[in-house]
Amino acid sequence: MISYLTIRECYDLLSYGSEIEVDAIEFVQLQGWVRTNRKGKNVGFIELNDGTYFRSAQCVYAADLDNYDEIGKYNTGTAITVTGLFKVTPDGKQPFEIEVKEVKLEGECSSDYPLQKKRHSYEYLREIAHLRVRTNSFMAVFRVRSVLSMAIHEFFQNQGFVYVHTPVITGNDAEGAGEAFVVTTRDDAKYEKDFFGKKASLTVSGQLHAEAFALAFRDVYTFGPTFRAENSNTARHASEFWMVEPEIAFADLEDNMNLIEDLVKYCIEYVLENAPEEMKFFNERIDTTLLERLNELLSSEFKRMTYTEAVELLEKQNDRFEYKVEWGTDLQSEHERYISEEVVKGPVFITDYPKEIKSFYMRLNEDGKTVAACDLLVPHVGELVGGSQREERLDVLERRMEELDIPKESLEWYLDLRRYGGVKHSGFGIGFERFLMYITSMTNIRDVVPFARTPRHLDY
Amino acid sequence: MISYLTIRECYDLLSYGSEIEVDAIEFVQLQGWVRTNRKGKNVGFIELNDGTYFRSAQCVYAADLDNYDEIGKYNTGTAITVTGLFKVTPDGKQPFEIEVKEVKLEGECSSDYPLQKKRHSYEYLREIAHLRVRTNSFMAVFRVRSVLSMAIHEFFQNQGFVYVHTPVITGNDAEGAGEAFVVTTRDDAKYEKDFFGKKASLTVSGQLHAEAFALAFRDVYTFGPTFRAENSNTARHASEFWMVEPEIAFADLEDNMNLIEDLVKYCIEYVLENAPEEMKFFNERIDTTLLERLNELLSSEFKRMTYTEAVELLEKQNDRFEYKVEWGTDLQSEHERYISEEVVKGPVFITDYPKEIKSFYMRLNEDGKTVAACDLLVPHVGELVGGSQREERLDVLERRMEELDIPKESLEWYLDLRRYGGVKHSGFGIGFERFLMYITSMTNIRDVVPFARTPRHLDY
Repeated sequence: MISYLTIRECYDLLSYGSEIEVDAIEFVQLQGWVRTNRKGKNVGFIELNDGTYFRSAQCVYAADLDNYDEIGKYNTGTAITVTGLFKVTPDGKQPFEIEVKEVKLEGECSSDYPLQKKRHSYEYLREIAHLRVRTNSFMAVFRVRSVLSMAIHEFFQNQGFVYVHTPVITGNDAEGAGEAFVVTTRDDAKYEKDFFGKKASLTVSGQLHAEAFALAFRDVYTFGPTFRAENSNTARHASEFWMVEPEIAFADLEDNMNLIEDLVKYCIEYVLENAPEEMKFFNERIDTTLLERLNELLSSEFKRMTYTEAVELLEKQNDRFEYKVEWGTDLQSEHERYISEEVVKGPVFITDYPKEIKSFYMRLNEDGKTVAACDLLVPHVGELVGGSQREERLDVLERRMEELDIPKESLEWYLDLRRYGGVKHSGFGIGFERFLMYITSMTNIRDVVPFARTPRHLDY
Repeated sequence: MISYLTIRECYDLLSYGSEIEVDAIEFVQLQGWVRTNRKGKNVGFIELNDGTYFRSAQCVYAADLDNYDEIGKYNTGTAITVTGLFKVTPDGKQPFEIEVKEVKLEGECSSDYPLQKKRHSYEYLREIAHLRVRTNSFMAVFRVRSVLSMAIHEFFQNQGFVYVHTPVITGNDAEGAGEAFVVTTRDDAKYEKDFFGKKASLTVSGQLHAEAFALAFRDVYTFGPTFRAENSNTARHASEFWMVEPEIAFADLEDNMNLIEDLVKYCIEYVLENAPEEMKFFNERIDTTLLERLNELLSSEFKRMTYTEAVELLEKQNDRFEYKVEWGTDLQSEHERYISEEVVKGPVFITDYPKEIKSFYMRLNEDGKTVAACDLLVPHVGELVGGSQREERLDVLERRMEELDIPKESLEWYLDLRRYGGVKHSGFGIGFERFLMYITSMTNIRDVVPFARTPRHLDY
């Protein structure tokens, strides 16, 4: 009897608690792609990967096979079906190997295959995004991306949060979070004659819509794509990225920070548990301090510091900064990294920023000068999360909108949320790719997005 | 000691297997919104809902409270904090009630609140999408939407599928699935000078990109927003909707249909189990045959029928159809419903459609006339899923693209997937909103999307 298995199932067979008796497995059939193939005079070795597991299966084929010479020619990337004996090899590099009885060609791989055995630079691999996912690095990145997505959903759903699909196409111009792309079916910008009868943009945040749902369901979250038409070519900016935006009612800034800390820790633990091979790979190949850093974060409590306290610390170090700090200036990456990497040496919330450098919807503090905002700074990445308590007082909110010249007409629905049973509520946004970069130590956002979109780059 | 609870936690306390002893709960504090408030001479009743559970908490307040008269004035929509004694009421309509000791006002609700106690039409509620989610119907719809999303993720992740975020902004014009919106930062359609240096559109499908990932990871799925710039104002079409698109390698049409059947059944069971109150509501208020229909589907095997067989059956009934059927015609909704509702009386796959009415990437059958496609038809909704085995043979695929005048330049990366270890693979797309409509019996897509986008409608 032949067992049709994936390579993950082969490894699972050998792990503690497996439901199937290994001894019961004799013949197996695997299907996958050749990673390497070395053929000698009497015996050959194929490292076979099928994408279901980070590690490959070692397939040993002998010269007594009819098509021994043909098999020897299967180059990297060739798709094959392998049937053979499943052999446990406790002393080998792999815990098992396949003693091949038959190899069948499923799909040839042309000899100009761009992924040869040698190491390729990330820059080169970006040019073949449709193939790079077959390499160890990107297989690890994109499996962790998937596992981290699931961690986020489990964290919120386990606590009864409702997942909201906030709209991608929006008519709100006033969210104030950067340049937006226009969505149109015309070529003359006559928006009143356009598909929606008005100017339409791609969303820069689902927060305002999430607030409407939080004021019905209490605890909600979004997880979807967001867009910025900013012409910045940095390693941390993409034109299309995913955001997670929870929104909680009957909750203040303190509750918000507790939720952020819980989320970050839950997700890191989840990834460590559910993608151990991949995380080991990152720790060995990308950043040898990664696992230590993540475990440190898990066991530490996130510190809290007001913006005013942070500025006092930073002012004393103005000599070393390119951008000098004084009360009222927005913090730059160099300041954020100094605080988290050198002062706190760990994750830290900066709270209560001057209202002038934050958004209109953040709740004004008693002092009239600062708002109930919280940014989470972490070593290595800088700002990972931005959140705030929202302004629930209709009169204060309207005054802020007037001060900032935000037209009220298109946001009357948002003001309604304050007119009809509005309560204190809070929320935050976490850039999914930044979080993924933090967890994997990958340093360029283009390498953690399946098919990255950046200025003048729209391939595939 | 006061226990700070959500209303869901109150109900959970009384359910079998609760971890907390009900007897240990004495004083509780709840926060939520007034659904109804009836005040008599000596006693008043507030139905309080906090969004965490479909059902509300009955709060009984007596005239000995200092602010008895004020409480009596709290109208529907008012946000309050209630502190009181938790009383189990096994003989009451609700399993518990709160004997109120204190009510604190959290947020007033203006008397022009558009959601008064009376029933409102769905048409009216669409005009206040930011508030309608506070009604029973929409609270049920959007909780089921969230639960169904989680069902999809669990189904795939439990089987090791990798979740891929395929891009929303795309440069591919040729996916052939309908009109696309243009994404731009200019007002003159000079795309070579535009943000991406070329014409950019909103995706109509993530399939082609998902194929690249399936040929690395074997089993993958997408779940994200998709867009159609079609000027159709029907109850089944929205300009922005979510799609689930799995893609599996080393898998043919048969494997594909098995996966579809498993997915549909898993999700329905999951929703019935995780949103029982909401499903009861739909069965009572929207469609009294709903639960029966879903349970029937769970216990039946999905039938399979070729397009050619279906046409033979339909031709005999041409008298009753507006659009007459002959071999080669695309099936209309009336035909699909006849097959699933009157012939099969249940879910049915129609397979092997003429190549002329299907997409270029579907695998050509031996007969040279049909392709290995499968559409799942279900009673009540019609087409729920569309899938196919993909053409993995480079020469056949190129010939199809030439026949259909699909420019190859921008899809060379897609052809590469056939050049380098291409194998048989299959996949499908399920319209998330249609699935949700099927599960809830809601009949208009505008009522299952948080903030619907349709021609000339872009509010909020």
